[in-house]
Amino acid sequence: MKIDGVPYRTIWLSTDGQAVEVIDQTALPHALRILRLNTAADAARAISAMVVRGAPLIGATAAWGMALAAREDPSDAGLERAAAHLGASRPTAVNLRWAVEAMLAVLRPLPAARRAEAAAQEAARLCDAEAAACAAIGVHGAALIAAAYDGTRPVEVLTHCNAGWLASVDWGMSLSPVYKAAEQGVPVHVWVDETRPRNQGAALTAWELLRHGVPHTVIVDNAGGHLMQQGRVDLCIVGSDRVAANGDVCNKIGTYLKALAAHDNGVPFLAALPSSTIDWSLSDGAAIPIEERAADEVTHVTGLTDAGETGRVRVTPQGSPAANFGFDVTPARLVTAIITERGVCDASREGLLSLYPEQAAA
Amino acid sequence: MKIDGVPYRTIWLSTDGQAVEVIDQTALPHALRILRLNTAADAARAISAMVVRGAPLIGATAAWGMALAAREDPSDAGLERAAAHLGASRPTAVNLRWAVEAMLAVLRPLPAARRAEAAAQEAARLCDAEAAACAAIGVHGAALIAAAYDGTRPVEVLTHCNAGWLASVDWGMSLSPVYKAAEQGVPVHVWVDETRPRNQGAALTAWELLRHGVPHTVIVDNAGGHLMQQGRVDLCIVGSDRVAANGDVCNKIGTYLKALAAHDNGVPFLAALPSSTIDWSLSDGAAIPIEERAADEVTHVTGLTDAGETGRVRVTPQGSPAANFGFDVTPARLVTAIITERGVCDASREGLLSLYPEQAAA
Repeated sequence: MKIDGVPYRTIWLSTDGQAVEVIDQTALPHALRILRLNTAADAARAISAMVVRGAPLIGATAAWGMALAAREDPSDAGLERAAAHLGASRPTAVNLRWAVEAMLAVLRPLPAARRAEAAAQEAARLCDAEAAACAAIGVHGAALIAAAYDGTRPVEVLTHCNAGWLASVDWGMSLSPVYKAAEQGVPVHVWVDETRPRNQGAALTAWELLRHGVPHTVIVDNAGGHLMQQGRVDLCIVGSDRVAANGDVCNKIGTYLKALAAHDNGVPFLAALPSSTIDWSLSDGAAIPIEERAADEVTHVTGLTDAGETGRVRVTPQGSPAANFGFDVTPARLVTAIITERGVCDASREGLLSLYPEQAAA
Repeated sequence: MKIDGVPYRTIWLSTDGQAVEVIDQTALPHALRILRLNTAADAARAISAMVVRGAPLIGATAAWGMALAAREDPSDAGLERAAAHLGASRPTAVNLRWAVEAMLAVLRPLPAARRAEAAAQEAARLCDAEAAACAAIGVHGAALIAAAYDGTRPVEVLTHCNAGWLASVDWGMSLSPVYKAAEQGVPVHVWVDETRPRNQGAALTAWELLRHGVPHTVIVDNAGGHLMQQGRVDLCIVGSDRVAANGDVCNKIGTYLKALAAHDNGVPFLAALPSSTIDWSLSDGAAIPIEERAADEVTHVTGLTDAGETGRVRVTPQGSPAANFGFDVTPARLVTAIITERGVCDASREGLLSLYPEQAAA
């Protein structure tokens, strides 16, 4: 997507071909900083420090990390060491392990001398495939946005957290339909949930919409229900961290509350995700472990001080405990449809299998 | 209620009898600062600057403002001037006008020489009546908390915003049942919604529970639905800014989302309020105007910097618009019961009239 008119991805090979470059997401939305990753260790650090985040982008960074490893030490031992290091950089991202394994599968059969070049080609191919899947999600989702357009006023989309192009290589998941619809000339306006405690909506979603030029308005997480009651939301579109085989959607904490409000007001509630997010081994969402994170993400808020520096303020009294649940599970009954790279389906086992019949036998 | 063991109200006559003192709520939760109000103009400023807030406390401060006015200039013209000044200090609080009118009704018939003493007595009486109403709300609500106690683990109460003793003279509305239950020996734990954008939960509710000694945990507004899905909330109790005659409850933005989650999970959802909050002239909540406030309450968060000073940080990119809706309306169908100083009733016209039969004729 574009930043002030200039096309970008979140990760790319440096022009000298010697390193990988990424957008430093810890500096957003207040500064656009490009970080150069020279080694596999740099890539692992970028993942663990959340310089890059979002399951698809974590996978892409791990793939490029393996490509950097193949230049440093293309021996079997060197690759295995890098794979272990990268694989441990973030504990829960499914795409991370998948990307590392995919790289190893390509590189292991090759002689060491040919591995560096093949690894770079494979990492680039994985990134292109990731971007293509997200673009396809956008095409399928944009049809739903276009169908909601009444010809008189912009389609109002509400989204939670960031599942935009910053979370992937390009296009994104929940925001890809928005970008595609806008590209097709459908007027769209996005209500951006700030998404406490880490404010990925206020910081990342608002920034990417602003820089690409999509009309949007930031709201607190409390406001979406009121907007839906007032008829000011046509569609909710969210991403997902894991979808169970029955269509239950695990996503950023607070997603469930928006799904309830959408259901109560007859607003379609859509989850957009690549099929790698579907966990066919889980019959429903109850078994998905919900990460509990550090309390200081709740007690403190980080942002830009009036002096123009990154700073944080405490919002709770010293001594009051805080709890920080990272995700919740939206039951399939509240999800109108799931959008994947293969199309749109019901949030149900039957619906998902209609898009992925090969999983019925598995 | 108590602050670290010392009984307090939010407003009181100074020990020298020459002024009124209030807790400066703009300094909470990071400092306990007492502010002395020497004149009616001081009282009006305290209201408009939100040194005091919460409809009942605004009314109490206006009453004391009239008492200060009666010392400064007890003439008819002096009282009318003060009444106009105080009445304009906050535009929407119903209790403000009501308290000013109640003071004028007592003072007008008296000779000027007797007004100062009578005004102080009447202001004190109004405060006592307010505290008594809130205490009664607590007694009625505590019975519901006690009924939810299974003898093995604390009753888990979730609340939104601040309708505690800081919003009233003493006891509070939504938190009064919690304090009364705790006083009766019922173990209670409160989940405190931080309540973006102004963080009255994180700042005020957490502070008053902490200082009074009630176990509690601060959560982001996004987390309540997940907690209810997990069976970790026994009761939701909120306050209200205005209740329509059919039981629709207008309260801080985000209340509706918690009511939806409570309904979806079979958790009782209770609104606690003095009867002065009931607007018998409104047949339902649709006509309640929803205040839109300044965008910078959304784009920025205020708190205590690591250096120990009050500061704020920007969380959104410069250039992204924000919208700030102050309240939402929870339909009566999602409200299990309404608690007032007269008891507990259904959230319906019939329910409210069963407690206030005198309104049936009105």
